[in-house]
Amino acid sequence: MPPSHSVPHDAVAGQNGRVRVVIEDVSPSVDGGRFPAKRVVGDLVIVEADVFADGHDAIGAVVLHRPADRDHWSEVAMKPLVNDRWSGQFSVDALGRHCFTVAAWIDRFATWRSGLRKRVTAGQEVAAELLIGGDLIHEAAVAAAGFDAQRLDELERRLRDSSNGPAALALAEDEDLARLMFRYAPRRFAATYAPELGLTADRPKAGFSAWYEMFPRSAAPERRHGTLKDVVARLPYVASMGFDVLYLPPIHPIGRSYRKGRNNAVEAGPDDPGSPWGIGGPEGGHTAIHPQLGTLEDFRDLVAAAQRHGIELAMDVAFQASPDHPWVREHPEWFRKRPDGTIQYAENPPKKYQDIYPFDFECEAWESLWHELKAVFLHWIDQGVRIFRVDNPHTKPFSFWQWVIAEIHRDHPETIFLAEAFTRPRIMERLAKIGFTQSYTYFAWRDTKHELTTYLTELTRSELREYFRPNLWPNTPDILPESLQAGGRPAFMARLVLAATLSGNYGIYGPPFEHGWSAPREPGSEEYLNSEKYEIHVHDVERPDSLRHFIARVNQIRRTTPSIAHAAALEFHPVDNEQLICYSRASPDRSDVLLVVVNLDPWHVQSGWVDFAVERLDLPSNRPYQMHDLLSDARYLWHGNRNYVELNPQVAPAHLFRLRRRARSERDFEYYL
Amino acid sequence: MPPSHSVPHDAVAGQNGRVRVVIEDVSPSVDGGRFPAKRVVGDLVIVEADVFADGHDAIGAVVLHRPADRDHWSEVAMKPLVNDRWSGQFSVDALGRHCFTVAAWIDRFATWRSGLRKRVTAGQEVAAELLIGGDLIHEAAVAAAGFDAQRLDELERRLRDSSNGPAALALAEDEDLARLMFRYAPRRFAATYAPELGLTADRPKAGFSAWYEMFPRSAAPERRHGTLKDVVARLPYVASMGFDVLYLPPIHPIGRSYRKGRNNAVEAGPDDPGSPWGIGGPEGGHTAIHPQLGTLEDFRDLVAAAQRHGIELAMDVAFQASPDHPWVREHPEWFRKRPDGTIQYAENPPKKYQDIYPFDFECEAWESLWHELKAVFLHWIDQGVRIFRVDNPHTKPFSFWQWVIAEIHRDHPETIFLAEAFTRPRIMERLAKIGFTQSYTYFAWRDTKHELTTYLTELTRSELREYFRPNLWPNTPDILPESLQAGGRPAFMARLVLAATLSGNYGIYGPPFEHGWSAPREPGSEEYLNSEKYEIHVHDVERPDSLRHFIARVNQIRRTTPSIAHAAALEFHPVDNEQLICYSRASPDRSDVLLVVVNLDPWHVQSGWVDFAVERLDLPSNRPYQMHDLLSDARYLWHGNRNYVELNPQVAPAHLFRLRRRARSERDFEYYL
Repeated sequence: MPPSHSVPHDAVAGQNGRVRVVIEDVSPSVDGGRFPAKRVVGDLVIVEADVFADGHDAIGAVVLHRPADRDHWSEVAMKPLVNDRWSGQFSVDALGRHCFTVAAWIDRFATWRSGLRKRVTAGQEVAAELLIGGDLIHEAAVAAAGFDAQRLDELERRLRDSSNGPAALALAEDEDLARLMFRYAPRRFAATYAPELGLTADRPKAGFSAWYEMFPRSAAPERRHGTLKDVVARLPYVASMGFDVLYLPPIHPIGRSYRKGRNNAVEAGPDDPGSPWGIGGPEGGHTAIHPQLGTLEDFRDLVAAAQRHGIELAMDVAFQASPDHPWVREHPEWFRKRPDGTIQYAENPPKKYQDIYPFDFECEAWESLWHELKAVFLHWIDQGVRIFRVDNPHTKPFSFWQWVIAEIHRDHPETIFLAEAFTRPRIMERLAKIGFTQSYTYFAWRDTKHELTTYLTELTRSELREYFRPNLWPNTPDILPESLQAGGRPAFMARLVLAATLSGNYGIYGPPFEHGWSAPREPGSEEYLNSEKYEIHVHDVERPDSLRHFIARVNQIRRTTPSIAHAAALEFHPVDNEQLICYSRASPDRSDVLLVVVNLDPWHVQSGWVDFAVERLDLPSNRPYQMHDLLSDARYLWHGNRNYVELNPQVAPAHLFRLRRRARSERDFEYYL
Repeated sequence: MPPSHSVPHDAVAGQNGRVRVVIEDVSPSVDGGRFPAKRVVGDLVIVEADVFADGHDAIGAVVLHRPADRDHWSEVAMKPLVNDRWSGQFSVDALGRHCFTVAAWIDRFATWRSGLRKRVTAGQEVAAELLIGGDLIHEAAVAAAGFDAQRLDELERRLRDSSNGPAALALAEDEDLARLMFRYAPRRFAATYAPELGLTADRPKAGFSAWYEMFPRSAAPERRHGTLKDVVARLPYVASMGFDVLYLPPIHPIGRSYRKGRNNAVEAGPDDPGSPWGIGGPEGGHTAIHPQLGTLEDFRDLVAAAQRHGIELAMDVAFQASPDHPWVREHPEWFRKRPDGTIQYAENPPKKYQDIYPFDFECEAWESLWHELKAVFLHWIDQGVRIFRVDNPHTKPFSFWQWVIAEIHRDHPETIFLAEAFTRPRIMERLAKIGFTQSYTYFAWRDTKHELTTYLTELTRSELREYFRPNLWPNTPDILPESLQAGGRPAFMARLVLAATLSGNYGIYGPPFEHGWSAPREPGSEEYLNSEKYEIHVHDVERPDSLRHFIARVNQIRRTTPSIAHAAALEFHPVDNEQLICYSRASPDRSDVLLVVVNLDPWHVQSGWVDFAVERLDLPSNRPYQMHDLLSDARYLWHGNRNYVELNPQVAPAHLFRLRRRARSERDFEYYL
């Protein structure tokens, strides 16, 4: 059996049995400490632990923390909460891995002081106590130096000379003495929780980002193959909507063998451009750019131009090869052979995907494969990319991702990895645990109030919130959900508001989103008809029916509501109508509150009473307060906990209320008195 | 950061990156594997784990288990449940520590077979598949020997020779082939969960025991100091009530200095016998017997006589010394000195307990102290004792208990330790984690339906059930709860039924319990008036108003209801009356069901409708079933889920219903047709 982690092993073996303090259940912790929790730089990390000892002695406890690459621990004192739970906090200021743990010990001075207080209160003789206390202070004075040592010497002398119990107690309870004793008194037989726990501090964008996905080859203003330069020209449009991440599907050369045609036809026509995910042709593979899109220089220009618009480029990384990928020829050892000597194509029997060769991660040459795939990331990092959207990571080994993300983060801790895995829960969770910065979710399939509330509660209230950062997408090139197929413009607006305010990270796939594309390839399908995955489109981004201005408004509200970045800041509120969902996001001090109400029914006006407990918001319960709908700019006076809302989806399916504390009343009026 | 425990460390370091299977969240597990779960010999251990890999390949998984002192692992196959959760089970047959873990791998044969099935179903060509499958079987044949190898050779040949897809599939799905492949096919790149988890298998009495506590000095039939021989004479009485553990408060010499008088008076009178917990006098300490009780030989006779009555003796272990204890003189290094050179007595300022010297576990000589205390256990083990009730373990270091229990269990794994800690929850839990076999609980203070349901649900549905074995006591020499002070005979009966049926382990302190002692020392106190802790009583155990026959009946019902030993077998059922509590205990196959209904109101008749879902019991919903009250021997016909109960506390405050499936109906009648 493994020994207890918090009773030092040697305590049981007989070396350190005098350690009496026990430390258990330290949080935040993922899988009992197997994986780091996630935070962003600047976050306050609240560490809690169960800390206790036998008997009734007082305990001292600290959080120890350090960046993983330093040896020096910083410490902050912990305070007891209730039921032997202690809490301490520190802020993470540096990117990358941090370690933390908890140390605790019997605090002899505090134990003595508390006994003295009880004895003095009971009028008992305390002469012996003053001797004991004096010795404790003396011990600390010896450990101290300079002014602190002098001060302790003086306090010791004054304690020993105390004329009576109450005078001694006053001295013992001196705050300065407490501070000095905490600092210098020897911490005999201290326990330290093991193993250390980990924390990854990402940059703020890891927790707060608005993504826009578009196909660069459909970026041209007229009917031709779009280019990276066309994408540059489209940047002002993307920026005007308020997005800060521009994500491009793969921009590499596309294979010709078994190329798929429009609407995923098995055979491509001569002019069909193929799927960008069929990566690799004679022109190159994962580090090359499709010639019709432009050059590596064009790409670097795009990265720079985007930056000037406050937009960061996100690169698609899809680790698979078309039969024409150079690696197929250069590294046949990375692919699995069939009995006839040909290379094994992708299959999900009885379906065959002959246009795709998966890598064989069980091959003998797995190490060179890992290193080459890592080199792909480094290549694009060299071009200025720091965000990667990883395609289907759940079809490659977890151990590879854990390794490659750690490798990249070692030198580039600012890199963000988004896991595009729409698969079983344990698998999605594992990818987040082993290092993916953000994760796609089931949001596209969560429509009703019950579904949304249950799912977001799981994401923000369970251990998931320590490591799984949801990135909510109402649509993707692969997913045109039923809600958008059926609900028309109100559904698009409602889904956008939900995605943008339920999570710090969200994204849309446009222009199909803002243009309201809603036709599936066939009834019952979630694939787009005439999907951009297989053909080029021309988008008139100036279309008057575009949702671009609505989207811009929502993104602007997001930017002024930093609490959207914090999972803990999401709280649902009851509404007596199943079609209305209501939730709030509040700043830690509750001075800023955004209350969101969405009508989930895109066809009918819905109304109901929102139950929003104002007591916790420091609002006078006997005076109205103002709710300012940032979408319509309308202002409402609300009163108490229950207020009426009514949303006409044809006008606007949502309220985004900013709570306005009323600054003035008649008492503030100049002539009042 | 510690590496992931389930992706092998070297996978990330670059040595074993081909391990694709992940194993997470293995249960049972206490504190993430820091402590062993508890079971009793003969238990079926159900091991569950999340097991998955990237991609769509089939997975094989096994539970590995072994006694901790053996090297050889046994394995049992696991089966998938839902959401990547797998389950496997084994029974523990040997006392003591066991280790277990989970291993899993990509099952190439099962993957191949499932692909073949889909291809054959779709009418696809399978020639290449037969080559691949043949190679897989061949590989296993090479690993096998004897008949198994021949059989695999033959199956390989037949597969390769298959005339068509369906024929090949029939062969591939042969059960014998599946069995042989599971056994012999190489498990390439298998993952093993680390660290191993632990399990303590105790003897059955650890999970199922009925305790009777009595003061031996009050065992005499007439007014004098009782002896161990008197206890022998009382054994038939204890056995007649159905108890199988007889627990005696300390039987050691009692200190004279600062001895407490009757009702805890500060000064004892000349004839006051003192508290048995004031251990140690000139006659000896923890290994001696109080001369007025008898000799060591008498003690051994008592152990043997008890055994003949099916009763096991439980010894009190209270690690503290009276000022007259021989160790005070022989080992002053084990006690803390006050500044005036005297030994520090027990204190909870401003209270002083000058009759008790606590050991100083922080002393320099802590190792010799630990060894001497261990010797106390061994001394009584030598006299035949295998059950220890440990007094106030929470005032001695956890590390000591962890060490001493492990030491004793190494040679005497049948030893049972009951922790008498009535303190904060984390501390009580810790004592159970580090090795105590059974634990006292808050049961004495849980009176209402809500309190009882909440508390027992916590004990039987949270992680606690893996390691914390409750031992429920309605009273102890220290605790005469308010419910018993006020409720009279019905309260005693109700509390007995609750204790005896809510937990596998329970006990009473008698004769005060069966004789209904209800007077507190003073109003608001939970101490007994004229407590046996400080004076000798004579008990007429033949009193006609004794509850002994009721207790005997309840214990007899317990013995015929083995599901009472299993925390998981406890289920609460709604009753529409807050004074009526209802719960059931069912055998794993639900063939035996005990339904308990208790009226918690000792003063009034209470009635209500019990909601007891019969669908899950294989009872025909359209026919009545019989409820046989084992307490009154009355039989009721119930029908469907909701049935009426009415309990008059003056008659009997509880039903203990055994569900009787009706054996016959009119269709079974001889002339029916």
